[in-house]
Amino acid sequence: MSKTIQVTVWNEFRHEQKNEKVKAIYPDGMHAVIAQALREGGFEVGTATLDEPQHGLTDEVLARTDVLFWWGHLAHGEVADEVVERVYARVLAGMGLVVLHSGHFSKIFKRLMGTSCDLKWREADDRERLWVVAPGHPVAAGLGESIVLEREEMYGEHFDIPEPDELVFVSWFSGGEVFRSGASYRRGAGRIFYFRPGHETYPTYHNPEIQRVLVNAAGWAAPTPGTAPVYGNAKPVEGVQP
Amino acid sequence: MSKTIQVTVWNEFRHEQKNEKVKAIYPDGMHAVIAQALREGGFEVGTATLDEPQHGLTDEVLARTDVLFWWGHLAHGEVADEVVERVYARVLAGMGLVVLHSGHFSKIFKRLMGTSCDLKWREADDRERLWVVAPGHPVAAGLGESIVLEREEMYGEHFDIPEPDELVFVSWFSGGEVFRSGASYRRGAGRIFYFRPGHETYPTYHNPEIQRVLVNAAGWAAPTPGTAPVYGNAKPVEGVQP
Amino acid sequence: MSKTIQVTVWNEFRHEQKNEKVKAIYPDGMHAVIAQALREGGFEVGTATLDEPQHGLTDEVLARTDVLFWWGHLAHGEVADEVVERVYARVLAGMGLVVLHSGHFSKIFKRLMGTSCDLKWREADDRERLWVVAPGHPVAAGLGESIVLEREEMYGEHFDIPEPDELVFVSWFSGGEVFRSGASYRRGAGRIFYFRPGHETYPTYHNPEIQRVLVNAAGWAAPTPGTAPVYGNAKPVEGVQP
Amino acid sequence: MSKTIQVTVWNEFRHEQKNEKVKAIYPDGMHAVIAQALREGGFEVGTATLDEPQHGLTDEVLARTDVLFWWGHLAHGEVADEVVERVYARVLAGMGLVVLHSGHFSKIFKRLMGTSCDLKWREADDRERLWVVAPGHPVAAGLGESIVLEREEMYGEHFDIPEPDELVFVSWFSGGEVFRSGASYRRGAGRIFYFRPGHETYPTYHNPEIQRVLVNAAGWAAPTPGTAPVYGNAKPVEGVQP
Repeated sequence: MSKTIQVTVWNEFRHEQKNEKVKAIYPDGMHAVIAQALREGGFEVGTATLDEPQHGLTDEVLARTDVLFWWGHLAHGEVADEVVERVYARVLAGMGLVVLHSGHFSKIFKRLMGTSCDLKWREADDRERLWVVAPGHPVAAGLGESIVLEREEMYGEHFDIPEPDELVFVSWFSGGEVFRSGASYRRGAGRIFYFRPGHETYPTYHNPEIQRVLVNAAGWAAPTPGTAPVYGNAKPVEGVQP
Repeated sequence: MSKTIQVTVWNEFRHEQKNEKVKAIYPDGMHAVIAQALREGGFEVGTATLDEPQHGLTDEVLARTDVLFWWGHLAHGEVADEVVERVYARVLAGMGLVVLHSGHFSKIFKRLMGTSCDLKWREADDRERLWVVAPGHPVAAGLGESIVLEREEMYGEHFDIPEPDELVFVSWFSGGEVFRSGASYRRGAGRIFYFRPGHETYPTYHNPEIQRVLVNAAGWAAPTPGTAPVYGNAKPVEGVQP
Repeated sequence: MSKTIQVTVWNEFRHEQKNEKVKAIYPDGMHAVIAQALREGGFEVGTATLDEPQHGLTDEVLARTDVLFWWGHLAHGEVADEVVERVYARVLAGMGLVVLHSGHFSKIFKRLMGTSCDLKWREADDRERLWVVAPGHPVAAGLGESIVLEREEMYGEHFDIPEPDELVFVSWFSGGEVFRSGASYRRGAGRIFYFRPGHETYPTYHNPEIQRVLVNAAGWAAPTPGTAPVYGNAKPVEGVQP
Repeated sequence: MSKTIQVTVWNEFRHEQKNEKVKAIYPDGMHAVIAQALREGGFEVGTATLDEPQHGLTDEVLARTDVLFWWGHLAHGEVADEVVERVYARVLAGMGLVVLHSGHFSKIFKRLMGTSCDLKWREADDRERLWVVAPGHPVAAGLGESIVLEREEMYGEHFDIPEPDELVFVSWFSGGEVFRSGASYRRGAGRIFYFRPGHETYPTYHNPEIQRVLVNAAGWAAPTPGTAPVYGNAKPVEGVQP
């Protein structure tokens, strides 16, 4: 990357403090593992968590964030609406957003999608196979034709999202379900990628192929400079003919 | 149509009561003219307006509505959030929604789009040419290659909407702007069509070609029966392999 | 349907004449079973097969066809280029096209997609589950949340097609693969639906849910009247400003 | 760019040799001006023209090309089918393709689109305004909200292309038409961008904003490494259940 992209990894960070099983996998929180993977991918990375003041997402932090990662699950309702609006405004202005796993039900993702974002789920050690359906898409760079996760939570269709701009991954689960696991959207000037895997009780974010997707997504979602749109009342640019 | 589709035309109905110019064009309100066009198109049509209790959009009315038309402008902020949520839930469950002109800034449209829905505008008697860019799309049925409106308000790009599922009309304005004037989306099981023309001080909804688009849009947006999705915790449909 | 839509079911009709197993399932050819299902769905239906003169697809037949179904497999190369061009021109002019199963490799589908349409496959009695990912889409009308086929040929990703306009079905296979099994496109004024199931050695087209999809697809793909586009050199519709 | 992307600019190069007006604007051919702009944008750039052996597009040239630009007009029919197939195969394998102006009617663009790619046109010194409808798209990086070309050939809708994956520019013409002037597609692993302006009798490719778009498009269309899809007969990756 010719300029260093600034990433902020936001994590609810509750499971890791309450649940011994999760803590064993992510002793410093999932955000620490994700952030480290992104640093190794060449990004400058900060983290923020729910229990910090303003959830760690102050105006200053968001202003310097090119791409925001979002993991939440238990406590979507505790995220202040004011912070959600701030993130929302930044996405429309161009900040990238990568929504992970149970972040599908976060306020910010539902706000940007305009749908319920509901789905089927099951915690039963399903095997997951994420098939690449868009080879050549930047988020799939460097992968083989599928990623296999020996144990993951199942998410199944129907996933109530708008038709993706581009569908990159489709998951197969051993219990018989499928899921649109990697989907891209543009909202305003901002790029959004939803990526399914990452249940807290599995070591998914330690997986090098999953980390590769996170790195790819950060690069893909980084803002494009220029073209600040102009809104509101406008004089004609040509003479108005009667 | 083999079964009669039920349409409800919702109108803010304020301009027509306050502004003599508008009243002269739409003495009974824009909703009356739109409803009549839709009746002639073979639909059963009711109307509802802002100042009725619950804005005329009770559970009963919405439950029997297949397609809701929405015109608002001055008083988007007066539409109760509770009613917006009710309409939103019905769209996700399959009700069609046709959003007209300044309805682009309505709470319900912004809620479903996930964007600001902002745009450029000018009231200066621009000529508008709506070009069909998707011949063969049901909403363009029976039209020629463009619709010409001698005088209309201008709406110009950038129009802050998600990439449309299908783009049907693009407008040319004499003042030099363009606009994505007919755009379709699916949200949940519901189909949404945004249609640009219809400023209150012009007789746009009396235009037979515009009426044809409204009739087409109602037919296209009508719900499809079946496939009620199932969400939440799910047992495997195949044996889970360890 | 208020007017009767004319459907032509085209079938290669070779397996049924050479292979006893296939003949036992489709004694009069797959086209006979598909045609009967469509008749029961309210369409007027004719059939055409490879070994008829001009493959049964004369100008007259195509001129009166609203929607063409296409099943081919062994003998794609025997379909005359001249007939392919005739079908292609009719699709761009508005005729619907429903491409079934191994028709993915037909000349007409590859011509309209602009890609190789290649995929993975396996004949091994996989179980297939077709999940509806677009509830509310007309092609999914009246279905439950999935269709289960106890035995089918497997088709797996990557399926080399353009990003679908709308993705309606995603298949799960017991052997571990997924597939985009129902995908819609518009080309010119014509609507195209690709539908995966239907290997000749299984009784798939006798399945009532599969037949429901075929009926839905025929209704969805039927042409929209009007808006014949005008191409070529054009006089200005406004005065050209210097 | 962290690695140097290899661009080949292909030009028919006939107008510049036959027409004094065109020669005055592009004495070394349009490809020379486009190539120079791309070099200044940081790419390694070669050129190729129709009258070279194999039109300059040998296997070796294509193998090392990351992004191919294509300008043709008079002599689409003289481009050998064999070369078209070679370019087509490379695009599906990941090579980017930027199709310019009258290249809309080239064999390669029609092959990849699957449509007629027909349109309206007029050489009458129309003013063109290219409005950005996708701010935040990489191809629009660094632009203002529109590009104004004082004189250009008009291209008008209906433009017979598939629904773009992403629509980036819409043109306004002084004669009353609109046009989808910047449209992106993916075919196989390759990214394709169509960009409208560039009639040979106008100095369009000397325009710095147009050059900026060309540079942006080259960067956006450059291939993504990895994920070579596997096609054909496939063993199950899971045990097949009877």
